[in-house]
Parts: sequence; structure tokens; C-alpha cells
Amino acid sequence: MTAPRLDLVIRNARVATASDTYDADIGITAGRIVQLGAGLPEGAREIDAAGRVVTPGGVDAHCHLDQPMAPPLRMADDFDTGTRAAACGGTTTVIPFAAQEKGQSLRAAVADYHRRAEGKAHTDYAFHLIVSDPTPEVLNEELPALIREGYTSFKIYMTYDDLKLDDGQILDVLAVARQHGAMAMIHAENADCIEWLTKRLEAAGRTAPRFHAHARPMLVEREATHRAISLAELVDVPILIVHVSGREAVEQIRWARAQGLTVYAETCPQYLFLTAADLGVDDGYHGAKCVCSPPPRDKANQDVIWNGLNDGLFSVFSSDHAPFRYDAPEGKKPDGEEVAFRHIPNGIPGLETRLPLLYSEGVLGGRMTLNRFVELTATNPAKAYGLHPRKGTIAIGSDADLVIWDERELVLRNANLHHAVDYTPYEGRTLRAWPAVTLVDGEVVWDGHFHPRAGRGRFLPCGEPTLAPNPRRA
Amino acid sequence: MTAPRLDLVIRNARVATASDTYDADIGITAGRIVQLGAGLPEGAREIDAAGRVVTPGGVDAHCHLDQPMAPPLRMADDFDTGTRAAACGGTTTVIPFAAQEKGQSLRAAVADYHRRAEGKAHTDYAFHLIVSDPTPEVLNEELPALIREGYTSFKIYMTYDDLKLDDGQILDVLAVARQHGAMAMIHAENADCIEWLTKRLEAAGRTAPRFHAHARPMLVEREATHRAISLAELVDVPILIVHVSGREAVEQIRWARAQGLTVYAETCPQYLFLTAADLGVDDGYHGAKCVCSPPPRDKANQDVIWNGLNDGLFSVFSSDHAPFRYDAPEGKKPDGEEVAFRHIPNGIPGLETRLPLLYSEGVLGGRMTLNRFVELTATNPAKAYGLHPRKGTIAIGSDADLVIWDERELVLRNANLHHAVDYTPYEGRTLRAWPAVTLVDGEVVWDGHFHPRAGRGRFLPCGEPTLAPNPRRA
Amino acid sequence: MTAPRLDLVIRNARVATASDTYDADIGITAGRIVQLGAGLPEGAREIDAAGRVVTPGGVDAHCHLDQPMAPPLRMADDFDTGTRAAACGGTTTVIPFAAQEKGQSLRAAVADYHRRAEGKAHTDYAFHLIVSDPTPEVLNEELPALIREGYTSFKIYMTYDDLKLDDGQILDVLAVARQHGAMAMIHAENADCIEWLTKRLEAAGRTAPRFHAHARPMLVEREATHRAISLAELVDVPILIVHVSGREAVEQIRWARAQGLTVYAETCPQYLFLTAADLGVDDGYHGAKCVCSPPPRDKANQDVIWNGLNDGLFSVFSSDHAPFRYDAPEGKKPDGEEVAFRHIPNGIPGLETRLPLLYSEGVLGGRMTLNRFVELTATNPAKAYGLHPRKGTIAIGSDADLVIWDERELVLRNANLHHAVDYTPYEGRTLRAWPAVTLVDGEVVWDGHFHPRAGRGRFLPCGEPTLAPNPRRA
Amino acid sequence: MTAPRLDLVIRNARVATASDTYDADIGITAGRIVQLGAGLPEGAREIDAAGRVVTPGGVDAHCHLDQPMAPPLRMADDFDTGTRAAACGGTTTVIPFAAQEKGQSLRAAVADYHRRAEGKAHTDYAFHLIVSDPTPEVLNEELPALIREGYTSFKIYMTYDDLKLDDGQILDVLAVARQHGAMAMIHAENADCIEWLTKRLEAAGRTAPRFHAHARPMLVEREATHRAISLAELVDVPILIVHVSGREAVEQIRWARAQGLTVYAETCPQYLFLTAADLGVDDGYHGAKCVCSPPPRDKANQDVIWNGLNDGLFSVFSSDHAPFRYDAPEGKKPDGEEVAFRHIPNGIPGLETRLPLLYSEGVLGGRMTLNRFVELTATNPAKAYGLHPRKGTIAIGSDADLVIWDERELVLRNANLHHAVDYTPYEGRTLRAWPAVTLVDGEVVWDGHFHPRAGRGRFLPCGEPTLAPNPRRA
Repeated sequence: MTAPRLDLVIRNARVATASDTYDADIGITAGRIVQLGAGLPEGAREIDAAGRVVTPGGVDAHCHLDQPMAPPLRMADDFDTGTRAAACGGTTTVIPFAAQEKGQSLRAAVADYHRRAEGKAHTDYAFHLIVSDPTPEVLNEELPALIREGYTSFKIYMTYDDLKLDDGQILDVLAVARQHGAMAMIHAENADCIEWLTKRLEAAGRTAPRFHAHARPMLVEREATHRAISLAELVDVPILIVHVSGREAVEQIRWARAQGLTVYAETCPQYLFLTAADLGVDDGYHGAKCVCSPPPRDKANQDVIWNGLNDGLFSVFSSDHAPFRYDAPEGKKPDGEEVAFRHIPNGIPGLETRLPLLYSEGVLGGRMTLNRFVELTATNPAKAYGLHPRKGTIAIGSDADLVIWDERELVLRNANLHHAVDYTPYEGRTLRAWPAVTLVDGEVVWDGHFHPRAGRGRFLPCGEPTLAPNPRRA
Repeated sequence: MTAPRLDLVIRNARVATASDTYDADIGITAGRIVQLGAGLPEGAREIDAAGRVVTPGGVDAHCHLDQPMAPPLRMADDFDTGTRAAACGGTTTVIPFAAQEKGQSLRAAVADYHRRAEGKAHTDYAFHLIVSDPTPEVLNEELPALIREGYTSFKIYMTYDDLKLDDGQILDVLAVARQHGAMAMIHAENADCIEWLTKRLEAAGRTAPRFHAHARPMLVEREATHRAISLAELVDVPILIVHVSGREAVEQIRWARAQGLTVYAETCPQYLFLTAADLGVDDGYHGAKCVCSPPPRDKANQDVIWNGLNDGLFSVFSSDHAPFRYDAPEGKKPDGEEVAFRHIPNGIPGLETRLPLLYSEGVLGGRMTLNRFVELTATNPAKAYGLHPRKGTIAIGSDADLVIWDERELVLRNANLHHAVDYTPYEGRTLRAWPAVTLVDGEVVWDGHFHPRAGRGRFLPCGEPTLAPNPRRA
Repeated sequence: MTAPRLDLVIRNARVATASDTYDADIGITAGRIVQLGAGLPEGAREIDAAGRVVTPGGVDAHCHLDQPMAPPLRMADDFDTGTRAAACGGTTTVIPFAAQEKGQSLRAAVADYHRRAEGKAHTDYAFHLIVSDPTPEVLNEELPALIREGYTSFKIYMTYDDLKLDDGQILDVLAVARQHGAMAMIHAENADCIEWLTKRLEAAGRTAPRFHAHARPMLVEREATHRAISLAELVDVPILIVHVSGREAVEQIRWARAQGLTVYAETCPQYLFLTAADLGVDDGYHGAKCVCSPPPRDKANQDVIWNGLNDGLFSVFSSDHAPFRYDAPEGKKPDGEEVAFRHIPNGIPGLETRLPLLYSEGVLGGRMTLNRFVELTATNPAKAYGLHPRKGTIAIGSDADLVIWDERELVLRNANLHHAVDYTPYEGRTLRAWPAVTLVDGEVVWDGHFHPRAGRGRFLPCGEPTLAPNPRRA
Repeated sequence: MTAPRLDLVIRNARVATASDTYDADIGITAGRIVQLGAGLPEGAREIDAAGRVVTPGGVDAHCHLDQPMAPPLRMADDFDTGTRAAACGGTTTVIPFAAQEKGQSLRAAVADYHRRAEGKAHTDYAFHLIVSDPTPEVLNEELPALIREGYTSFKIYMTYDDLKLDDGQILDVLAVARQHGAMAMIHAENADCIEWLTKRLEAAGRTAPRFHAHARPMLVEREATHRAISLAELVDVPILIVHVSGREAVEQIRWARAQGLTVYAETCPQYLFLTAADLGVDDGYHGAKCVCSPPPRDKANQDVIWNGLNDGLFSVFSSDHAPFRYDAPEGKKPDGEEVAFRHIPNGIPGLETRLPLLYSEGVLGGRMTLNRFVELTATNPAKAYGLHPRKGTIAIGSDADLVIWDERELVLRNANLHHAVDYTPYEGRTLRAWPAVTLVDGEVVWDGHFHPRAGRGRFLPCGEPTLAPNPRRA
């Protein structure tokens, strides 16, 4: 019995998983972790972590890359720039969305999205599906087949005209999720309320970016959250509520959990680090940079989100990266114009900054343990979408996706980031850590410099979600 | 750079931690895990796990062994029989209680308890303190010093005449916990209510064992839980509510968490597998076997406890092993008599059955993931009481406390157990798994036979609790 | 200064209002109460109440009479038989619904409904509106004008294909209610969920009447209740949730109240006295008699409703009388057939039995005070819909609508009732009281015999709701 | 049959009861209301209300008058000055406390208190009991006898060293309330917490009046409220929580109600019109004027109290008048000294200002209906303590205790008040109404001038509480 020759040894790592922190060398062969131990034999290559913290590479389970948009809009990041930014910020797996257009087959959407990703990604990637047209064909044929082929999660929208499903359609899609063991993600905002408020605001001439937040008050999200929970309860299926923004939605989810319902929740950096004031305190257009949905709330809601992250209410921390350039006709100024908030494309960039922000303020700021950080940013997203234990942890047999952390102060500047967006909402913010080295499948892709290699990123078929016990085993 | 020679390799393990499950060999040297990997070099000894699940040895953070009692009562298990039972059931660390008597110094209680443990234990052990007499000397001198020396948790009783503290005393003790970073465990039942109900029941001639449950209805526990939370909120300190029995107490804890308070909770097998009916449906005395406090509730409350275990409400799953022989003058029949329920010593045995019960019904019954099982029974108890990562996980540098599981049906019989109690409340119950092998510090203590070695078990000084982020680092 | 000559004196009454119970004579002139006192001067006519309880005549604020239906369906009661039944059961004011059909103008619906009522009613009556097609014309012209003319309440349906509004339409209608001080009543059930479940049940061949309850589980009502509350919160307007059936909806309303929202609630006899079992425990068709929406729940939910009646959660107790003959082609057997539950007309008769049931079980059963009975059945409905103090109380200047109660045991038989329906859901039930005498505007219409007089009943224009403080006065 | 000759007619009244508002003349004979009607015959005397609102005289169910205190303390108001102030502010019945001292018999306390009241009161009065020493004699003999004699309510203190009961004693007293149909009032604050905080504040030199509020944070009241509810739940008896100050206690009471428990609540003007800032924003001693327990909270808590008043959570609105002179050695400056907050006598004056404050801000401020005002200040207190319908309403047979309101602006000045206290906490506040006339038993005691008559006020034996249905009737 002979141990395999090690391709790479990361020495003197302070290894952190979702449950443990310990000192070890990490032995890597063929892109996988094959040994953990004290004093491992020499590897073909060696990296000295010098006692620094090493975490699993981040899994960003909610990000949008090169998603087809209605012209003139266009996402700034494709799989090249998007995964470049991801890697430089410590994220080694992304799960963007293959979005069905109404009238389109899901298969066609998936095929198109593979074409967009193929050969471009610097990190591994999987796909969520967006179901916007749940025809019988989609429900009975396409979805079951796609789930079997590794597309085991889909997103349901309760708002946005081109994407939203009505309650009956949601029930249909949830029933498929239940029957085939897939994970349903839900964007919970009440479309009718938003439209009603938007018209009122427009009639009153209130069209500046900051009114985006007025058109989507917390109750709009709370109502849809309660409704989503109710629909899932009726079907008896787990769901995951994405990008939860504050107290009222959190209360609904806590209530559901107390009833014994399996309701998972995700939140994002914008709900910890931005407030509605970032959309503008006056009618200036710069607030468009922070227009996203749900909108950021206020300080008290940030505290509720922090509490939920620490206490287990949230399972997943994602970026909801939706990259639109600010000063661009295909971005926040459609056709070059400053437009009414209704027409501003929703979304903010965040793929590269997600981990450093949370590591700085959460772990080093004493608001969560290092293990909880790993769980929220890597392990749980991998479990939720059937990629664990291949992704999301440091364990024997897992892909060697790793981040060596450098705990030092730095000031965040968009100039130093690697996405194709022309701003970051966090410009000028002081951080307390940044990845020193990011490895994807055992290769260094970031060590202060970005090291691309054509075709490195691979598509990952997903298995069943494993956050919850699998009732089939029982 | 040479890897150390391995004393023992456990080969082909299906390793389970609180976050991950993966296949690996486990290399052990000097009682510690030093390597994890595929195809480890040969060890001086080898055990083939043959693909079976290997978990960290259990940490039983709530058990009573050889605790001084008022005559004629005597606990059936001392550190010898108690830790023997523990090891045979897969538990490798116990944390019983050094209990201060009123008028006694805490130091004296600790010294006495060391004498009882010394040289007898078959597993490692730490001590919780029970503070029953918080004099200024205790608060200002003894407790701070003992915390520094590794006694970092103490239990506060809100009931039992010889142990209970009033609210002012509880505040004093919690203030010490806060100042010195210790963990306070609270037994939450309202003593006055119990006494009042007991007198009423006695006046009505209702003294059979089953009336024990009538004297301690759920609201008695709920009230004290709310009060304990309030006292902790006032002092601004985390607490851990022990042996939570059902819905009403759970609701209080959920409420506290939603407010952002750090309130941990523990539950025990009796609240999953027994009901008040086990105390007797008629006035027969056999119900005395299941007299414990709080009493078991009903099926609906069991479901609430299961839900809380799965959903993260509970951090710790302990036995609350309190060993009294049934047919014995020093046990459930004091001086040989069947007595009124008030005089029945409270407690049931459970050290040996805790893990097999939860593994069978929880993991194999599909009610929780294997990782959650590990978290509840080993990792979190070790974290809550400052023993992690030395105890409670499978990681490089951790003590080689391991359980290799045998998934097979068996019928539970007290005759096959290793404690000194003459019954188990679970007699005749069918289980689906039992430890095939238990290792303590790298030594096999159970492999279907118990392998004692004099003086194996060591005292473990405890560090700071690490369940929550440590605010001092921030 | 001379007191007016009294037309009628009711002597020795035990007068009960929503707040007080006291002994007095009641002096009536020109159909109004003009004096209350000890030893009133002799009236032109006298009735000796002989110490019996006298309450204000009931106001049934939720009943359906001669409402246009899609053929072959036809309501069994028109304004003649309906108000006859009302009067014989102690109800002296009814408020049925002028229902807009889609495409119809509200004015036309109101005019048609006046034609149906004109000259037929034996009690006074007002109209609620049902808004099923909120066109700009309806919202901006018709509704404001009709409110000014005395149609100050309207009902919004969240279910039923021909009536339901979407969330945006509901917001529009609520905004009118807010602007013009009207009261919005909401039927809260999620239409999509009901349709989805119904299809599933039908696909499984589960079409017997009892499956009606399976198609409308509590969560379907809870979800819509939460949504209705949210929509009202957004518009900042009071609403009244009609026919609340059980715990989950009650919890939503309690939650809303605790937030400071003005959410009123109504319940009905069927939620106190029937359960889902009354829809059938097997597939027999007789259960069609109790098909109404929401369906009756179970005993535990009945207790929640009783608690809410007593504790102030509910403001109004109505019948939701919806009269369909059982054994009739225009009723529960459309075209003479036993049909799938989807096709059974929803509704049960209850106008005549509402007060005796609640008086018997509530007041005489010790579950509510006599004053609370008056408040729920007369005073509050009159206040909620702008008829108080003309209707709903015994006070100087109020209409002399009175019930003298006979507290005696009787067995309820449909043969003894006065509606045109061929059954009562309460057949064979023992009651403890029934009206001895009912007076409408000072005239005896029931004294064991029914005394019709052509054209007695008058239309009542309604004013502003006065349940809540009127913010305009402030 | 001849109507009695009327001693007094109040003409053209706008009569308001807890349920109705209507125009009528009020006929009074022998101190009682004997007729209500349009155009009553002439009375021996006449008062023209001229369309002004006439309400029942207020019932102040929580006030302290001439209660024995430990020297040097002495209450400023006895039955003479106290009831004088009451009458001038529209209150016509007071229910102060016959307080048992530890070691004293209840009978002795009652006898002593009768001596203090005898011949001095200008309004009618009843007594609550304060049970501070529930010996078997008190529980088994005195209390049952006193209840039969018309002392049907008692107050239980959970704080104050000389008054507080432990939980077991509270259960004993509640059991008596249950058995004999009495009403238990509870002062809910946790004594141990207050003492613990007070010592800490004192150790830190924080002894100024404003620290009184720091020593009694909301959670201290919330905890005791939860505990009181739990004790009442155990005994299965209604309770009334007095002087509820804010959100956290309100939430506990709402929760209890939702469980079906009969928990009544009282609040007071200080929780609507004062905040903790009135105890001082610096260490000045003037804050002593507003030292009462629980302390006033903040604006957000005031809103919660307003909401509870309007929505039915609160049944009773009392003054908790506890009259201590500010600049006096027997008052707020014991022995003439400014003392640490612990030694400041607790309580503020409010008997005279209770009704005008609530009428101004509640009724005229549009925050509650006139009927709700009457219910909270007169009808419900009379019902809660067994004085209704003799007191608390305008009805045939009720005592002619009436207030004719003058709606006009005035500035509140202590110089214009009639108590013996040297300040009012509301000095300088603008009111919008004040009683024009107060009648007690048909006699004018206030019409801008105070009209005393020796021995006018009578002692009122109380009957059973009638707020809730009386289960004995069922």
C-alpha cells in the first residue's frame, strides 16, 4: 500500500472547515485533496501557507453571468471576466442561471448557456435553471430529464414581468421539485404591489433611483415570503428563499421553521453593507449603482441579517452578482440616458468582494466564527445544490479549491477588481483581509496576479441537495 | 521532512464530521490523529473499517457519576462503571458535575470529585461545576480561579431545594460567567410551582410515580425558561438551557434567538423516545424507572424536539444520565420502600444508549443527516465547553477518539449494557446500529468486548466556549 | 315641555346593550325608542316583557338573498322569504350584496338589486357592493358616487373565477375605500391553490362533497389572510376579513393587530357548530348540504373561534346565509344531478338560526356575556357599516328593532323555519332560547307567528363606519 | 302606572356609554337615573347640557389614598383631598387599597382603612385589598369572608420588600381568587432583578432619580408579566396586570390571550404622556417628581400603549395616583434630603387629570372613540371589580354619577388642581377638555367650583367581576 505521489503540498496551513479549525499540511494530487496531515511527504510543488488560514474556495450559488437580456441591456460580465473576478476574490465555483425565455424550451436555454460558458470559465461552474414558462412539456419532460442530467435546482420568480410565475404555476414547479428531489429557489416579492406603487410614484414624478426602494418596501417582500412558504407547505417540499433583505421576511422564515417546515434562506452582502441611503438621499442618478431587488434596507435590518447569519437562520451567503456598467448604454444608463427607476436594470456587482467583505466584518469583526464563514460561503451552498463534498470543503477526495487568506488592511478600489463592471458599491471601504492565493482544482489562479489557463473551468453536474436529511434513505 | 511513523491506521473509513462525509484512511500516532488520506502508509497496527461510518467519539456533556447524595441515596454508576458504559456505547468523553453543597467551598467540591474520578475512568473527562452557594468568596475568588484552571462551565439550578438559586444569585453567577468567559447551563423549572402542585397532589392522595409528571407540567418549564432568558439578557451573557422537553420551552428559546440573544439549548433521548405514559398509566410503581425532570411529555412534543434537532434550535444532545437502581434501597425504592413520587430520586440511565438511539432513529430513520448527528453528539458539546478541537471531531491533531459503526438490527436489553443500573427505560426497543469499535486516544476500548486499562481516562481542563464567535478577538 | 305620547310601551324589560344590562320599560313612538325608564306612562299599546331579556334586533351583515346566479343555479331565498326567516329568528336588519358582474356597471347592479328588494322585505335592509370589475369608471366615478349615496361597504373576493380580483385590483379598490371612508370586506382564500388542489383531487377521482374541505385547507385561507393584511397595510386602510374559520387565519389577524394595523374580523355559526366531518365521513352526497367556503374545520379550531369571539378578536358575527335547496336542480344538485364538489354551489342557510344558536351556546352556555352577544350580533355590525346608532342598539332615538327572548329548550327542525331552503345544517340540535317577539320599527313581526305587512322593510343608506375612531375628527 | 317625580333633569345631553352615543334628557330621582328620553317631564331641578357630551363619572380603580407608610413618608392625599381632586376631574368612584402589613390581619387593615375613609369622602368608594402576608388564617378565613362582604379584589405585588409575595404565595392567593370568584390584580416587576441592578448602579455612584428607570428596564416587567401569566394559567384563574408600561409586557399579554387565557390589562396616563426623559436627562433632582414603577418608557412604547387601548388589549385605564409632595420631608425629599433613587417614594399624582388627558388626546385627538373612552375609564373598571351597572354607565337604575364635558383649550397648572400634592407631572400641558359639571349620586360636586358636603361619599361593597362571562351561570 503506497500513498500516491503528491503533486502539490500546501504546508503549514491553518485549515478551516465548516466545523473545525486545525493545523495541517494539505496534499494534492490530480486536482484533488488526497492527504491531510502533519509533516506530509514532499510534493512536486510546495506552497508555504506559513500558518495562515486556508478555507475551501467559495461557492457563489447566486450570480448572473452573460444572461441574455432584452436590448439594449447587456451584462458586463461573461464567463471569462466573471469567473476571473470570482477567482481573484476567492470564489472557485459559480452557479449562474440558464434562463428560459417565455416560449423557449428549457433545453434550448441550457444549450445556449453552455455555449456561452464553454471554454471561457476560469473556475468550475454549474447551472441553476430559471423556469419562466412551465408548460406541460417543461414540467413533465424537460425538467425531470434535466434534473437527472445534473441541473437539480431552479429559480422561481414572483416578480419581473418576463419571468414571474403565478401561484398555480409555482405549485406545478414545486411539485416537480418534490417528485424529483430538486431544490427550488424563490425570488419573493409581490409583483402587483411593486407595479401599483411604481405607477403611483411615477404619477407623482418620483422617478429618481432612490424611489426604487419606495416601490419595494419590506412588506412587499414579506408578503411574497409568506406566500412562497405557504405554497411550499401545500406541496410539502423544501424551498430556499433567496436574497432575504431584512426583519419582516426573516420573521416569516423563523415562523415557518418553528412549524417544522423546511425553508432555507440566503442573504447577500448588500443587506449587510448597504442601506437604502446608498440609492441616493437626493434625486442624483449615482444611486442607480445600488439599484437591486430587494433593495437594501436600513441599519436595524442589517442587524437582523447579521443575527440570522450567526444563529443559523441563513444557510447560504451569495453575491447575487448582476453586472451592469453604470456609465453605459447597455447598463445603468440605457441607450445612454438617465432613466426612471423602473427602467434601471436591477443588480449590483459583488462576485469578487463577497468573501473579503464577510471575512473582514464577520470573522475578523467578531460577528461569526471562521467555521460559520466557511459553512455559509462554501459548504452549505455546495450542499444545497448537490455539489458537496466535491466542492465546498477541505476533505479527502474533494477538489483542491482553496483560498489562503492574507489578513491585512486594504482599501477597496474598483480599479483593483477583475470584473468588467465600472464600479463597485463598496468603493473606498476598508477591508481587513483578501485572498493571498486562490487554487482551483489544485492550480494557482490568483496569488496577487491572475493566472488564466484556457478551458480550465469545468461544468459540474449537480446531484441531490444534501442540506437536509434525504428522506429516501429512511 | 518525514511523516511520523503511524501507530495505527484505520483503513477504509467512511469518515463523518459535523460538516463532511468522505472516504479516507485515518493515521494515528501517540493517541492523536496525524494523517487523513487515501492510501496512507502502513501503521504499526491496522483496523479495517471496511467502508463503515466512522464518527468522532461522543461527548456526553450532561451526565451524573458518583455525585454525592443524601443517604440512603447513592448513584449506581461511578467513574468506573459510568465511563465503561459510555465507551461501550460510543462515548469517549464525559463531563459530569462537581457539585458544591451549600456551605461547602467549590474548591473542596472539585477536590473531592477528582478523588472520585482519579484512576477509575476509562474515557477522558472534564468537570462542570454546580454552584449551589454563591457566596462572595465563591463569586470573587473561587470561580474566577477555577475558570482559569479549566473548569469553564457551571450549572445553575432553578429547582431542587438543596441546589436552587434565587434570581439574584443567578444574576451574580451569570455576571461571573460573563466576566470570565465561562458557559452557564441552566436547569429551568419553577420550584415554587412544583412544590405547590406536589402538595396539592399529595393532599389528594395522588402520590404514584405518574403524578411526578402532573407536578411538573410544561408551563413550569416554560416559565423558568423565559425567566432564565430574561436574567441572561439582563447580564448580556450566553446561556445554555439543559434538557429541554417540549414545545413551550422551545418557543421561548426561538423567541430569544429571534431577538438576537445567544441562548443555546440541549435536549436528551428521553424527550424523543419516552412520554409521560412511561411513568405509568396506572398507579404501578414501575413508572419510577422513568421519573426524571423535566418529565417526558407526549408525541406532539417529541415531534417539536425532533424538529428542533434538525433545524438548529438545539446545539447539544446529551444523556442526562442519572443512574439510580430501580429495585434498591439506595435507588428508586429508598430504604427499600415504594415511596411517594416526591421522594423518588430523579433521573434515568442513558450514557450508553444515547448515541445508538439517535443514530438509529435520527440518521438511519432519515430524520437528520449524519453530519448533524456528529455535530449534536460530539462537535458542539466539545465546542460549548471548550474541548474542541481536541475532542469532538476527526481532524489533524485531534485526539483519536473514534467510533466505527455497525449498522445492524439489535434488540436493546439491559442485560447487554455496561452500567451498574438494573434497568434501561428502552428495554426491548429495536435499534438499527451499535458501535462496532470504540477507540479512546487511539486505543480500542470496545469492539464487542470491553477492554479496560487502569488509569486510561485523563482529566481534561477546558478552555473557552467556542460555539459562538469570541467577542474578544474582534 | 311635554313628552310625546307613546305608541307602544314594552314593560318590565331586562334591557341588554353592548355594554349594559338593566331593568326598564321601553317607550316607542313612530317606530323609534323615545323613552327608557322605570314606570313609563301608559302607551297606546303595551307588551309585557315580564322580566325577560330584550336585545336589539340582530343585524346580519353578511347574507346573500336573490343574488343573480349562473343558471341553472338560483338562490332559494329572495327578500321576501329571506327577511321573513330573519325576523322570525330575531334579525331585523339585513345587508345582502349588490353584486357587479364582470362587464356590468356597478350602478346597474345596484339598480337591479333595488328592483329585487323593492316592496318585498319584512325587515329594513342596506346593500354591500361586490366589486368584480374595477374599471377606471368604477373606481373613479361609480364607487365614489355610490359611497356618497349610502353604499359605504364593498366586498372583495380573492377566489371564485367570476368574482376574484388580482392583487393590483385589490389595491385599487382599497385605495378608493381609504379615500372615501368606506369599509372593505375581504373573502380571503387563495384561488390558485384551490384550483390546483381541486384538479389533483379530481384526477384522483376524489370528487365527493367531503373533498371540498380537502381542496381548501386552512393554509389556503391563512395565506390569503396574510396577503389581504399586507395589501391593506400598503394602502393604510382598515379592512374586515369575513368568515374566518380557524386558528391559522386568527393568528395572522392577531399579528396584524399587534402591529397596530386596523384589521377587523367576522366569523359565522358554521365555524362554531360544524366541522369538516359534516361534509361527510364517507362519499355520501348529503355532505353537500354543508359545502361552504371556507369549509368548517375541526373541534380545536372551533375553540379558537370561541376564544376570539370572547376576547375581542372578532367584531362581527354573521350568518353568511347563502340559500340553496339541497334536493333541487337549481340548488345542491345542479340540473338534478349529484355533481363533483367543484360544481356544488357554495353556501348554507343560517339567517334564522344565527342568533338562537349563539344565544344558546354562547350566552346561556357561559361562553360569552350577554353584552358581548349584543355587540357581536347587532351593535358592531351596525357600526362597521355605518348604521349605528339608528340600528344595533337600544337607545333613545334608535329604531325600535327589538327581540324579547324566550329562554326555553327546543329542538331545531327545518320544518319550523321560515326560509325557502329545504334543510338546515343544524337539524335536530337542541337550543336553549328563541325569540318570543321580534319588533321591526316598533311593529311586531314575530310572536310565535309571522306577521307580514306589505312594504314594511325600508332601504337604509349607510354612513361612515364608526367601529374605529374617525381620523377626520382629530 | 305613574312615572316618579324627577328630582333632576339633565336636558339636551349628548349621552355617551361604552357602546352608544345619542341625544336625550336624563331623569334622576333619589340619586339614580330613572328615565332617559326625548322631552322628559320637568324635574325639580334642571341642568341644561346644551348638547354637550355627558359620560358616566369615571371609576378610578387604581389609586392610593392615605395608605399607611413607613415614617417619615406620608401620602399627601387622604380621602378628603383625594376624592375632592377626583370629583373635580370627573371621577366619581375611587377604589384605593386597604393594605395588609406583614404580621397584621387583613381584617385589621380593612377596619383601619374604613376609619380613614369614614365621613371624609366626596365620592363613593370601594376597597381593594393588598395581601402581603398570606397566612393560612388569611387564606382560609379572612379572605373568603371579606370577599363575601364586598371586598372582591386584591392586589399582589411581585416587588417591594414589604409587600412582595413569592411564587408559592401568589399561587395560594390566586387559588382563593379562583375558588371565591375574586379578581386578582398583579404588580409585575421582578424584585431580584431590580435589587441587583440597583446595587450595581449604586456601586457606580449612579443614584440620581433618572437611574430609577435604569434599575427597572422593560425586561424586568416583561419577565414578571410572563411569570404572573404562568401562575394564573396553572391555577386557571383570570388576572388583571396593572400599570402595563410598554411593548414587551404587552406582547406577553397578547400571547396569553391568543392561548385562550383570561388576562386583563390596565395602563395609566404616565405611559401615554411621560417618558423616561421626564425622570431627568441629567442628574437633577426634579426628576424625582416622575419616579414611579414601572417607569415611563419612550415614544415607541407610548405608541404600543395607544394601540392596545384602541384595539381592546387594555380593559382599564387608571391613574395609579400615589400622592407624595415633592418638596417635603414626608414626600420626595425624605427628611428634607435629596436621596438616592432607591429611597425616593414611588408614585405620581394623577387622579384629577386622568380623564381630561385621555379625553383630550384620545377622543378629541382622534385616537379612540368616545365610547371606548367611557369603556376604559368607567364601564370596564366597574365591571372588573363588581360595581357595574350601579357604577360606570348611564342606564336606568344606575347611580347618577355623571360628567358634562366642556370642550375647550386650557393649560394645566397645579395651582388649579385640587389634590394636596405640590406638583403635577403635566404642568403646562395644553388640554382640549375639562369637566364642566360633575355629579355624584345626582348632586353637583363640581361646576367650576367644588361643592363639598360632609359625608357624601359612601362605601360600596363590590360584587363579582363581570368583565368575563361568569362560568357559574353556564
